Order: sequence, then C-alpha cells, then structure tokens
Amino acid sequence: MSNSYGKLFTITSFGESHGSCIGVVIDGCPAGLPVGVQDIQQEVDKRRPASSISTSRAEEDKVEIVSGILNGYTTGAPVTMLIWNKDVDSTGYEKIRYLLRPGHADYTAFVKYGGSNDFRGGGRFSGRVTATFVMAGAVAKKLLELIGIEVLAYTVEVGGVQAQPRQFDEIRKNIERNPLKCADPKAAKEMLRIVEEAKEQGDSIGGIIEGTAVNLPVGLGEPVFDSLEGELAKALYAIPAVKGVEFGSGFSAARKKGSENNDPFTIRDGKIITTTNNAGGILGGISNGMPLVVRVAVKPTPSIAAKQKTVNISTMKNASLEIKGRHDACIVPRAVPVVEAMIAVTLCDFAIRAGVVPEVIDRT
Amino acid sequence: MSNSYGKLFTITSFGESHGSCIGVVIDGCPAGLPVGVQDIQQEVDKRRPASSISTSRAEEDKVEIVSGILNGYTTGAPVTMLIWNKDVDSTGYEKIRYLLRPGHADYTAFVKYGGSNDFRGGGRFSGRVTATFVMAGAVAKKLLELIGIEVLAYTVEVGGVQAQPRQFDEIRKNIERNPLKCADPKAAKEMLRIVEEAKEQGDSIGGIIEGTAVNLPVGLGEPVFDSLEGELAKALYAIPAVKGVEFGSGFSAARKKGSENNDPFTIRDGKIITTTNNAGGILGGISNGMPLVVRVAVKPTPSIAAKQKTVNISTMKNASLEIKGRHDACIVPRAVPVVEAMIAVTLCDFAIRAGVVPEVIDRT
Amino acid sequence: MSNSYGKLFTITSFGESHGSCIGVVIDGCPAGLPVGVQDIQQEVDKRRPASSISTSRAEEDKVEIVSGILNGYTTGAPVTMLIWNKDVDSTGYEKIRYLLRPGHADYTAFVKYGGSNDFRGGGRFSGRVTATFVMAGAVAKKLLELIGIEVLAYTVEVGGVQAQPRQFDEIRKNIERNPLKCADPKAAKEMLRIVEEAKEQGDSIGGIIEGTAVNLPVGLGEPVFDSLEGELAKALYAIPAVKGVEFGSGFSAARKKGSENNDPFTIRDGKIITTTNNAGGILGGISNGMPLVVRVAVKPTPSIAAKQKTVNISTMKNASLEIKGRHDACIVPRAVPVVEAMIAVTLCDFAIRAGVVPEVIDRT
Amino acid sequence: MSNSYGKLFTITSFGESHGSCIGVVIDGCPAGLPVGVQDIQQEVDKRRPASSISTSRAEEDKVEIVSGILNGYTTGAPVTMLIWNKDVDSTGYEKIRYLLRPGHADYTAFVKYGGSNDFRGGGRFSGRVTATFVMAGAVAKKLLELIGIEVLAYTVEVGGVQAQPRQFDEIRKNIERNPLKCADPKAAKEMLRIVEEAKEQGDSIGGIIEGTAVNLPVGLGEPVFDSLEGELAKALYAIPAVKGVEFGSGFSAARKKGSENNDPFTIRDGKIITTTNNAGGILGGISNGMPLVVRVAVKPTPSIAAKQKTVNISTMKNASLEIKGRHDACIVPRAVPVVEAMIAVTLCDFAIRAGVVPEVIDRT
Repeated sequence: MSNSYGKLFTITSFGESHGSCIGVVIDGCPAGLPVGVQDIQQEVDKRRPASSISTSRAEEDKVEIVSGILNGYTTGAPVTMLIWNKDVDSTGYEKIRYLLRPGHADYTAFVKYGGSNDFRGGGRFSGRVTATFVMAGAVAKKLLELIGIEVLAYTVEVGGVQAQPRQFDEIRKNIERNPLKCADPKAAKEMLRIVEEAKEQGDSIGGIIEGTAVNLPVGLGEPVFDSLEGELAKALYAIPAVKGVEFGSGFSAARKKGSENNDPFTIRDGKIITTTNNAGGILGGISNGMPLVVRVAVKPTPSIAAKQKTVNISTMKNASLEIKGRHDACIVPRAVPVVEAMIAVTLCDFAIRAGVVPEVIDRT
Repeated sequence: MSNSYGKLFTITSFGESHGSCIGVVIDGCPAGLPVGVQDIQQEVDKRRPASSISTSRAEEDKVEIVSGILNGYTTGAPVTMLIWNKDVDSTGYEKIRYLLRPGHADYTAFVKYGGSNDFRGGGRFSGRVTATFVMAGAVAKKLLELIGIEVLAYTVEVGGVQAQPRQFDEIRKNIERNPLKCADPKAAKEMLRIVEEAKEQGDSIGGIIEGTAVNLPVGLGEPVFDSLEGELAKALYAIPAVKGVEFGSGFSAARKKGSENNDPFTIRDGKIITTTNNAGGILGGISNGMPLVVRVAVKPTPSIAAKQKTVNISTMKNASLEIKGRHDACIVPRAVPVVEAMIAVTLCDFAIRAGVVPEVIDRT
Repeated sequence: MSNSYGKLFTITSFGESHGSCIGVVIDGCPAGLPVGVQDIQQEVDKRRPASSISTSRAEEDKVEIVSGILNGYTTGAPVTMLIWNKDVDSTGYEKIRYLLRPGHADYTAFVKYGGSNDFRGGGRFSGRVTATFVMAGAVAKKLLELIGIEVLAYTVEVGGVQAQPRQFDEIRKNIERNPLKCADPKAAKEMLRIVEEAKEQGDSIGGIIEGTAVNLPVGLGEPVFDSLEGELAKALYAIPAVKGVEFGSGFSAARKKGSENNDPFTIRDGKIITTTNNAGGILGGISNGMPLVVRVAVKPTPSIAAKQKTVNISTMKNASLEIKGRHDACIVPRAVPVVEAMIAVTLCDFAIRAGVVPEVIDRT
Repeated sequence: MSNSYGKLFTITSFGESHGSCIGVVIDGCPAGLPVGVQDIQQEVDKRRPASSISTSRAEEDKVEIVSGILNGYTTGAPVTMLIWNKDVDSTGYEKIRYLLRPGHADYTAFVKYGGSNDFRGGGRFSGRVTATFVMAGAVAKKLLELIGIEVLAYTVEVGGVQAQPRQFDEIRKNIERNPLKCADPKAAKEMLRIVEEAKEQGDSIGGIIEGTAVNLPVGLGEPVFDSLEGELAKALYAIPAVKGVEFGSGFSAARKKGSENNDPFTIRDGKIITTTNNAGGILGGISNGMPLVVRVAVKPTPSIAAKQKTVNISTMKNASLEIKGRHDACIVPRAVPVVEAMIAVTLCDFAIRAGVVPEVIDRT
C-alpha cells in the first residue's frame, strides 16, 4: 500500500471504515500557520451525508488535532488529525464477506492481501477514508489563502444533466445551497429528481465534478514527470469512484484543430494572459496564471439494492448478492469537497516546491 | 524539475531537443534480463516520423547503451541509453525566442526558469524527449514479457473519426500497417484524409489513443495514493499534448447507472473474471486480471503555420507569430509508442512492487 | 521536517513530548502478520525509565493500536499506534523558554521554525519521540522473526568503562539483568557506580551502544546510495544524542593494514563465511551473511543541573541557566531498545526490497 | 540498486569501472547558475591518482557536459556529465572472476545479482564510480558559493599518524601541497613514508578524513529522520571503504561528561555562537551556524599483493588468491575530494529544502 502523497507537503492517511478511527499526518506544513480545529471541522462537515440521497450512517465526524499545533499555530512538527469512528455497524458485512461486491475493491483487495484485508464496509477502500483527505485539504487551504489562491469544486453533471457554466463568485455562492453542490440551481433541481428516482429503484447515478483554482502564480508544476496535470490526476484518482480526469478542453481537444485549441497570448493590465483557456491554466505541465480547470468523472456508486451476479470467493462458486447496508444513491456531491481538498493539497505541495510560500510564516 | 518516475523501476530522463543528446537511466531493473540494443532500437523506430503527416526533421535516432548491460544481460547496475542529436537546426528559434508560441511551454518555462531555459525547439519540453520514455519502455516490455504481460497502444480517434473496436490480435496486426497506427483500416484511411487536409491548411489535428495490457495478474497497484489509475495517469500526463486520461468506461461512466456500470463477477475456467469490463481492469486502484483499458486525449499540435496572436516577452508588447520550423500536422500516431512505453514502465514498476517478477532473473 | 523513514516499510512518526500523544504509522507492512498489542507494549516497556539513574517522569506509556490490525493480524493497511501523554508537567519550560539549553535543539529549532516550535520539554526534539521508533521496531521484529533474523542492542561502554565481548546467547540473557543493559555484569556494576556519581554531581555521562543482527541472508542493502551502512547510519542518527556510527572494525580500521583488516573467505558447512568479521557483516554496502555489527556513540545528556552559560534569544543577551526538570543522568540504557528498533526497521525495509519476506503472509 | 541521492538536488550516478563511461545526472539544480566544464574538470582532477602511492591506471578523466547547460548557465533541465572510460584493461579480472577478493563486494554482488553483475574491476562497486560524485559535487559547490558556504576535506590520520589541527585558511592552502592531502606538512611526510613502506610490502593503509564547511546558515537539516548528521552519514557511506562517520566530538563524546561536552552559547558581534564546537555545528540534526565537522574512517584498500585465503564461488572450494591489477596502497587522499563532494551535495540539497538558495538565479 502507499498511503502518503506529496513531496514537501506530505500527507499520510490511515484508518478504516469500521476501525477505531481515521486520521492523517501532514509533514512539511510551514511553522506559524494559524490553524484552529474549526477550520478543519468546517471542511469535514461539507462531506457529511446531506439530505435524502445519502447514506443513513450518522457519523458525527468530530475532528481532533493531536499533534503539530500549539496555541493555534502550526509548530513545524507533523500535524496529526483524527476522527473516531462512532456509528459502526459491521453486522451486515460478516454475512457477505466472501461475496464479491461488483464494482468494489473486494476481489482485488482479497487477492492482494491474502484475505487478511479489513472487509468491513470496504475497510481501507471505503469512501469514508476520504474524510482524511478533507482534513489535510483544510490545512492546505489555509496555507494557499496566505498567497491568495482559492480553490473550488462543484458538480457540473449528474445522470446526464449538465449544469450551465457560471462565474467564480456565483459558483462560490451557489454550491452550498443545494444538495448536489451544483452552481446552476436549475440543473441542480433536475439532477436531484434523477437521483431520487434512481434511489427509489435501488439504483445509483454517476456524474462529473469540476475543480478550479484562481490567483495561481505562473510556475507551479515540476515537469517532466511531476507535471501539474500528472500530480493532480494522481491525487484525484485516489478518490474511490473516479474513472476519468481531464484538464481544460480535455477530451474535446481531441476533436479540435490547433487553430481552435491554442490560447492566444495578450497583455492585460501589464500582465500576460491568454484570451481563451483551453489549456485549463496549464502549459507544459506548469501553471500559466489562468484559472486551473480540471474535470473528474465519478462512476455511479457500486452499492446498489438490486440483485447482482457475483462469485463467492470462499467456495469459488457463482452466487447472487443483494446489498443492504447504508449507501449513497449518488456520491457525487459528497466527493465535491474531496476533489477540492486534493486540488488544495497538490497546489500547496507545488507552491512549497516553487518557493512561493515562505518556509516559516511570520506571526507578527 | 522532476525528471524521474517509478518507485522501484525508476527512470530518469535527460536531454533537450537541440542539445548534445537525449538519454535515460533505468535504476532497479533486475539483473539477468536479456536486452540487446536492437530491442530498444526497434521500439524507438516506431516513434520516428512516418509518411507525409510528420515533421521533416530527419533524426536517425540511433540508440547507444552505455551502462548496465554486459554480454547482452542486465547487470543490476543502472541501465543508461543515449541518442545523440544529429539533425539539429536551431536557426529558426533564435528569431522567435521571445515570441511565446501559443499552446507551447514557452511562457511558463520562461517564467519558471528566469529565461535561462533552453528555448531551442522547446528544449526540455519538446516531444523529442519522449524518445527517452520509449527507450525505457523497451526494457520494461522485455521484463513484462517474462511474466506474459503484453502492452499495446493504438489510435482510436483522430479529427472526430472514431475507429471500430477490434480484438487484441487484430489490433497487434493492424497498427503498424497504416501511418495513423489505428487498428481499423477503414477509419485510418479517413483519418489520414483529414490530417492531410489540415496539413494543407497549415493547421493540426488531435485525437485519442487507447492503451491496453493483457495477462495482468490480480494485484498490481498500491492504493490509496499509488493506485494503478493514479500512477498511469501521472505517467501519461508526462507526454506533451495529453489533456485527458480515462479508464474503462471513463467519462461515460458518469452518465450510467450503477446497475449498468458494475461488472458482474463469474467463474470461467476456474478463475474469477468479470463478464463486462467497464472498470478497465482496475478495481480499488488494483488490477483485477481483466484487460487494462486506458484512453488518452491528445490535443492538436500547437505548432501551426497560420499567423497567431501572441506576446513578445522581452518587450512585453502584443505581437503576431508565424511558425516555420518542421512540425507534425498530427502528433497522435507518434505518441502511440510513447503511450505504450509509459504503460509498460508503470506496470513494470508495479510488478516489481507486487513481487510478481523475480528480484534476479535466472539465466540458466 | 521529515518524519518518515524507509522506502517500502515506511514509518511516519508524530507527536511531541508535552502534546496530546505520540504515535507512528507503518505503511508497507505485509498483510497477515500476527501482531498483538502486547508485542508492542513489551518493547516499549524496555525503554521506560529504570532505576535510580533515569528521569522521574512517570509515563505509563500504554500502547494503543488504532488501525491496520484486525483480529490479531495486519491487514495490509497502514498500522497506526499511539501513546497518550499523561504525566505532562510543562511549568518549568515556560520559564526558561528563551534560555537556550546548551547541547539541545532549542536554538536551531527556534530559528528554523521562527519561534513557533513546541518548546515544552524539547517538543518534537525530545527523546520521548523515540518511543514511536520502538513501536515501529516491535512490528519490524515480528516480521524479521518470520525469516529467522534476530536483532540485539546492548551497552558496551559508559563513562570510559568498556564491557568485555560476549557471545550472542549470553548477551540476550544478560542485558535485561542490569539497569545499564550491558552484557558484561562486572562492567555494568562499574558503569552504574560512575553514572550514580555523575548524578550526584548533577552531571551526565555518555557511552557506546553496540547493535548486532544474526541470520541475515546475503544480499540486504541497495548500493550505491542506499547501502546497508548508509541507511542504518541515517536511521541511527535520528536518535537524539547519537554523534558517531561505525561498522565492524570501524574507526580502528583506519589504523590497520589491508592484510589485517580483510576478512578471508572460507567454506563452512557448505556455505561461504569469513573467518573474521572486520566488515561487520557488510561488503560493498550489502549484507554478507555474517553478523551485522554496528556501534553508536551517545553523547552525555545535555540536561545537567550545573549552572551553564547561555543566551536569552528573546533579549539577545548573555545569560545563565540552571535546568531543573526531570532528566536522565545517563540516557544510554534507554537508547538501547531504540537502537535495536531502528536496526530492525531498516533490516525489515531491506528484506522487503530484496524480496526475502513474502508480499503477503500465509496465515494457514 | 539505488543510484540516486538527494531530495530536491538529486544526483543519479551510473556507469561501471570497465564499461563505456561513468556519468551523473543532477535533477533540481536551479536555473541560471554559471557552470563551465572547467569547473567540473578541476574537481575531477583532484581525484586522479597522484604520485607513487596510487594506481597506474592512467585515465584522462575528461569531463563532458551533455545536457542541462546552455551558454555557460544551467537551464533548469537535468545536468548530465560523462567521463568515457579509456584505459580499460579487463584481462586480469576474467581470470579471477570466481575468486572472491576479501574485503571487496565480489561475494555479495555475485549473490545479489545472481552472477550477472559486471565483475570487471569491481564493476559498479569500483571506487572509480566516485568520480561521478565529484562531478555532482562540483556543481553543488558552485551553488554553495553563491550563498558563501565553503566546504573542505583533508586527511587527518593515516597509518596511525595524526595531523595537528590547523586553521581553515591554512588547511585550504596546504592540502594540495602534498600527495596525502593533509593540512599538516610534517605529519604528511611521515604518512607518506608509512604508505610507501606498506606499498613495498604489497600491503595497504587506511586513514581518517575530516570534512568541514563554514558560513552555514542556521537551519539546514530536516529532523527527525533527514537530520544533517543522518543524511551526511548516508552520503558518505556511499563511498567505498568508509566504515565510520562521526560528528564533532563524535565517539570521544561517549567518554565525556555533559558539563564537558555541552557547548555554551554566547553573543559575538550580535550573533549567537557557541564558545566550543563539540557538536560539530549540528544541534538537533540542524546546523547551528558553527563550522560543520565530520570525520570519516577509511579502511585500508582491500586489494593487496599478498596471497590471501578465499573461496572459488564457481567450484565452492577453498582457494588462494594473488591480486595483480593496478591499485592504490592508500586510497585516503583520493577519497578526500569525494568526501568534499558528498558534503557539498548534501548541503546543497538542504539549502534548497530550507529555501536559502533562490529557486532561480538572477543572471543580471
């Protein structure tokens, strides 16, 4: 396993869905950054099940900081944050232990860890683990704030319904106003209808999340291999259910001509900008100062109520499976703050690598 | 910069488009692997400009092995391979040195390296650098061969023309038979027509490359952060012009229901398989034994003949630019062996991490 | 800061002397390893203050496992272990906050972290942090046990008194029988006398710890840069107070001729061995199957009762300092299990890298 | 194998004693650093066999820069430097291929690489490989120069003869004046006599090298695990023949009391210094602004003319061995520039990590 990410701002995630706790260690956070437990809690709360379309598992998800912060400021030592698992109900899982849930990691984890993996609620492969990403992202966002970078993620498509593009300020305002975390209220309504329909059918729905970041300096990203696209993609693929990542015009660039896809440069207010942003803010793997634009394809939650064909790995016989448990009909909105967090963590790492955040933050 | 990739099978790439040479060091290749210079040359040759649609730069691209191989076998020491740059013509670049080519890394590289970057032919950001990936990939393929894994990449879309899906054997047979490296001969013909048309217009065309790998054992990939998707995406984004990476049903999964997208398990010939492959061979970030399927969006080459609006970074004034040089109207087919190489390198690294290749290869 | 160590068996340590807790995450421990909390507790107990010569801080040091272990076996997920700090008394430290304690990290930490570092009891630089190494080492020892490797550390010199060399079995038997953790009971008695004398004078005493490991396979160590010596030295220098590390004949090799220092090879019981062990079990950075021998110089504890000259970093004036607190007159015996732990962690990492431990441990 | 070192200023070494070439790639050198081939050549020349006491292998060791430098300045791209092997004579080695040379890596390399390792002249384990360290060190020294740091290494003991301590300026002046690279001319003369005596006897002699660096800022080093001591030790143990590394009072600290070993702080010229330097410039793993002092034990060259007992690994029978070849009676002086180089590389990496060198060097 590999549970660490980031070269200079390094996060190490641990914990399982039905274990004692989940947590994260951040190594490399500059000393002197003001961080309160409420800064973290507020981000984690965004990931909590909201409304009718989410799981009924009622975790309080109370954040506890256990190292690296003294009197409200980071000390330079590793910052460790925990969430204790409270509402654990593993009874359902023992029964289906050997029935491989389609679309889940049950099969691959069983083989890779010789059957010793924690199977309860997906164990280490549970979406619950992404709460640790959000805790790390909350600290990253505090650091990015210092240099004026703002990161936002929001739902742009669910069940085939596409949101209309909105301005940054409008996005920021709208996303917390609907359970889909979509910046287009009208589309959000339609998305909700589709998700609720799927829920009634015991089915699930996928979607697309867009992430953006503004006020990036020119120069973040370390090509050839640690390009901004490459590291962001790697970070985003750590989120369960993500099956596609594209930047700027992305897959549609494949259908364009060079004359359409190139972003012309011009001078505005004494600064170099591009008049379009097909590059999604990245040229040669390095930020060009335009808004970062990344889109993430989220597959429909594999946990569905309908009976599915599968295999019992203990008997090696074909079998059928009905998943009871507590699940999300559409995980997309709950993945939104996670996408935001992983973008923040990645940008933070690159900002430190590029020397655009101070080694130590002056508290005076 | 970050010019190394891979945790245990680590490649370090170096060299610039118009410098002395380009090269790669592989650290971590098991000792005892039979590797001849022709194994490498044959892969590099696949990347050479082919036919009418490519650059006229006539590099021989002759591979030289300078360390790590003795009497035709790897020694366990780092394997270093070089290609000397021969047909270098930098005259055109001095003239446009400060004119930022849209869609290229000129602007971001200039800012990041304070103007000290090698600007000739894109320098370190040139597509030429990917020949070093292909050399590393050639060694990786020799190692994968030992455990029966075969990797293939091929063009599936160019200029909006989509190829029909083909069987693995047919793909292998067809891709070298047309300049597009497409497995569907009919589509290839149409693609070629479109590219030639764009060329005549001084424009360029993008496309989509699919990569696949068969006979993967179950268990490659190291979640949470070093998932098979995450590392492959990172590796593929090191290829200039890549703006999207998706696995299995990818972005189309976002439009599916769970009941459609889940791949049911069943037993075949005593082994567990899935009856569909929307997962693209990956569950929970780990290979599930089904064919790996990844698709890569390649933007149209930014070097086009048409006059473009840009900025002179020396005078900080708006300017216009006409690129003469020697360029590819469609880089997609030349990127195909590079995609194949990066998949091979990544799988090789994971195979070593998972202990499915021997530490030392028995030569008897 | 850099709080992780090990490439495949990676430990991440966190926590401060006077914070909530100290802890460690192990990433890369093979699944299926039987580990109980008592396995860890037993090692941690060896590090507790013993007898008259140690600090009076009375920490229970109760180990809690919070992730990565299910029903007594590792799951393949990160193993996290915590010790909550209970007997914290920070009152003394606030008073001397700006008085730099000679020989401690106060000055360098203050400058490096801009005064935001946790100064209470040395914070992250406290010897207390090494309890996290011991927890990691306890898991490493369980894994090494599987392949028959045994690691031992013991005191060989304190205050100038040198222990007589002993056989491995005798060492194992004797070290827990005296407060100095010395295998030579007679020398131990004399050492104790000297330490007690220093304690009465409010002074402290240094010493030398030897570490050894037997039943090593040939082939551990990854030269050139990740040599067995290099990685072990790096690991051992993470222990506060260590100022020298040598292998085999070490510094005395500098005074020998080649004909004296070379270890002749011979065949014994069908295996290649050396008839002497000046190499300390390492040739070319790789284990040669002979016992590993490493020695570690431990400086006298810098916390002494005597008045010392120093500087007040707040006023930037010369000052004098008397340290009250609770300290060890000789830290050497308490460092012994830490040396053992760091050797175990390093060997474990190399054993995994060399493929001599299974990826997954068969529990049947 | 692991042939890379350094986190942000990363060197990757390759090549074998009797292969085509040896070389090094530096990744992470800031752009804009003035580096000429003569800067590198001059350092490499210091490592060449000097006088009567060294090998008769007459390598010109001509440095070639093949990437990363344009018009005399680094570009930000990887800097690659090569030395082609010219005076290769492998005939002697084929004959003794299976006779394990005592004190060399022959046995461990044979087992680790399954007999596929390059055995000619020690292959990858040859001291010749350290010329690649010196090339990297030469670039590192140019970067350190920018921030005023100067590194020096020199012989302090050979064959039991100890040099008298000298001031920094005197050391710099004296070391190139005698074949021993010793700052004490009188001791140097006696050392030379002893080495020549050993040479006549077909024997070899070890010694101790001291390294120092002045004008270090406070704050280099990343504890807990990447301490200044830990990383320096790791780097120095990459030099073949090194068997001990100590800092400041080192092993002698083990024989001191805290009251003797602590370095009192005081103010001088408005800056905090210590009045003694038993810490060797390092407190808590971090530089404290005092001169860095590290000492390295070098074992006597294992290649000696005298007949030695050994094993033929092909027949697995006892055998005897007489080494002809071309060897150094005392490798210590040739290791001096290598020690200097590895200190420079390590400090350079830490300086970049601590943000005390600019990301990009302003060329104006």
